[in-house]
Amino acid sequence: MVDQLRRLFATNFPVGIEIGIGDDAAVLTGINNKLVATTDMAVEDIHFKRDWSSAFQIGAKLTTANLADLFAMGAAPKYLLVAAGLPSNLEDNFIEELAKGIRSVADKFEVNVVGGDLSKSEKIVLSITALGDLAKKPVTRSGAKVGDLIFVSALPGLSAAGFAILSRGLDRPRYVVDAHLAPKLSAPLELINCASAMCDISDGLSVDAANLAMASQVNLVLSKELISNAAGFSDLAELATELKEDVFDWVLNGGEDHFFLATVDPEKVNGLSAIKIGEVVAGDGKVMLDEDVIKKAGYQHF
Amino acid sequence: MVDQLRRLFATNFPVGIEIGIGDDAAVLTGINNKLVATTDMAVEDIHFKRDWSSAFQIGAKLTTANLADLFAMGAAPKYLLVAAGLPSNLEDNFIEELAKGIRSVADKFEVNVVGGDLSKSEKIVLSITALGDLAKKPVTRSGAKVGDLIFVSALPGLSAAGFAILSRGLDRPRYVVDAHLAPKLSAPLELINCASAMCDISDGLSVDAANLAMASQVNLVLSKELISNAAGFSDLAELATELKEDVFDWVLNGGEDHFFLATVDPEKVNGLSAIKIGEVVAGDGKVMLDEDVIKKAGYQHF
Repeated sequence: MVDQLRRLFATNFPVGIEIGIGDDAAVLTGINNKLVATTDMAVEDIHFKRDWSSAFQIGAKLTTANLADLFAMGAAPKYLLVAAGLPSNLEDNFIEELAKGIRSVADKFEVNVVGGDLSKSEKIVLSITALGDLAKKPVTRSGAKVGDLIFVSALPGLSAAGFAILSRGLDRPRYVVDAHLAPKLSAPLELINCASAMCDISDGLSVDAANLAMASQVNLVLSKELISNAAGFSDLAELATELKEDVFDWVLNGGEDHFFLATVDPEKVNGLSAIKIGEVVAGDGKVMLDEDVIKKAGYQHF
Repeated sequence: MVDQLRRLFATNFPVGIEIGIGDDAAVLTGINNKLVATTDMAVEDIHFKRDWSSAFQIGAKLTTANLADLFAMGAAPKYLLVAAGLPSNLEDNFIEELAKGIRSVADKFEVNVVGGDLSKSEKIVLSITALGDLAKKPVTRSGAKVGDLIFVSALPGLSAAGFAILSRGLDRPRYVVDAHLAPKLSAPLELINCASAMCDISDGLSVDAANLAMASQVNLVLSKELISNAAGFSDLAELATELKEDVFDWVLNGGEDHFFLATVDPEKVNGLSAIKIGEVVAGDGKVMLDEDVIKKAGYQHF
């Protein structure tokens, strides 16, 4: 098993690894500042379906979710540990494809897989821990100040739209289906550098914004007009109308988009390419859409 | 979910935690030297049965396995991240008991749970990542030298004996049943300080010794006489006879005992309380019992 793991996760840039896969534990020298750590699990038929997702996509998507959590703290991702429970009736190359999917995201950010565990399991279970290095102050959820402006790194709702498409047995438009099955991750570097508070919005904008509002003890007022003017909104709205769904439900409650929500001091917003969607006001932890308080809905697993 | 995790893993000694459970990721300040990391997964009906193991025992056992891997490198354990997939039909306090089991082992070694993820799952799946700090050279599997003596921190085979008892629908003698369901972990400090090579033997003495022999490019010769003279052996042998099982099969191939195998320069063995079981000789990676080469058998999951 160790040989298999070592082969699957052999890397071209083994930086900061004194001992990798193959001994009792990895010995790592790449954390020079604070250690940032997060873990996430994905379970077949809860988080993904084998009918919809390839092994590659399953691996890539969970890796994306993990690395997004590190980025949301302002950290530079360094290492992954991967535990997988796998049925014995999988197609031959499933585990290779799963590892390639993990590597496709890890390689992009020069992250190494340094530990793993393979087990039998009736349903596929994948659990990934991501470790990063943080040289500066962490960007927490609790730093939002009244008067800050609210940004997202990209317009959410794409993954929910993709889910709506797949649920109807359709497979296009591809850009929303891909957003659900193979979400792309970009490091939110410009937001890390200026945010007073930040989080990823993979649980749904409404849920994650509420957590940030509560942690910062402010209200976040999102603007329907600003959201409606965001790039990509009109295509999404058109698709929602076709499917008789509510585009604001996708945007606010969709979840599984690995984008970032940040609050930024208005004096620091010059030149930001992120999308402005609202403003921080005095309050006790609510999220509003214009005048209406948004109830936490968040992402519902199938 | 975050609130639940925070409550379950609230700690009395939050040392080295700048941000714990509750933000996107934990921010940790307790790794002052090299970071040591390992991950392990336990799946219901593969690694444990709910009929045999309580939630507390399931949590404690996997935590034990993880911390043993850190100790086997010579590291001081610091942090755990816990991901759990849980069925919806569990008894009410299952998750509390699972967390208490994890905490029972973590608290003993002043280790904090700093991250977690809870998910639905048909079968119980638990995945733990352990992180430790290593101030000195790691104790790898590759340092064994010809002439070194071979030690185990305790006589293995207890867990296999417990499994044999439980498989027959029996529940005593308790000390072997407990060794299987609720293994105890002791930090192998005296071995860490003197070992030329070390590993844990949870996959079975024969398997783990062969991995160490291979990594060090030596042969390990275990002595039937030394093993037979070890404290506890005669009770185990008597039990094996009663059950018509082979006591040496338990000792060599049993697995799931979180004890340690170490090779030690004969000049450094004075005063060791560990059990001497053999000697390192020139070779190419074999394990022998006296004159006979032992085939790798290792632990078979049910």
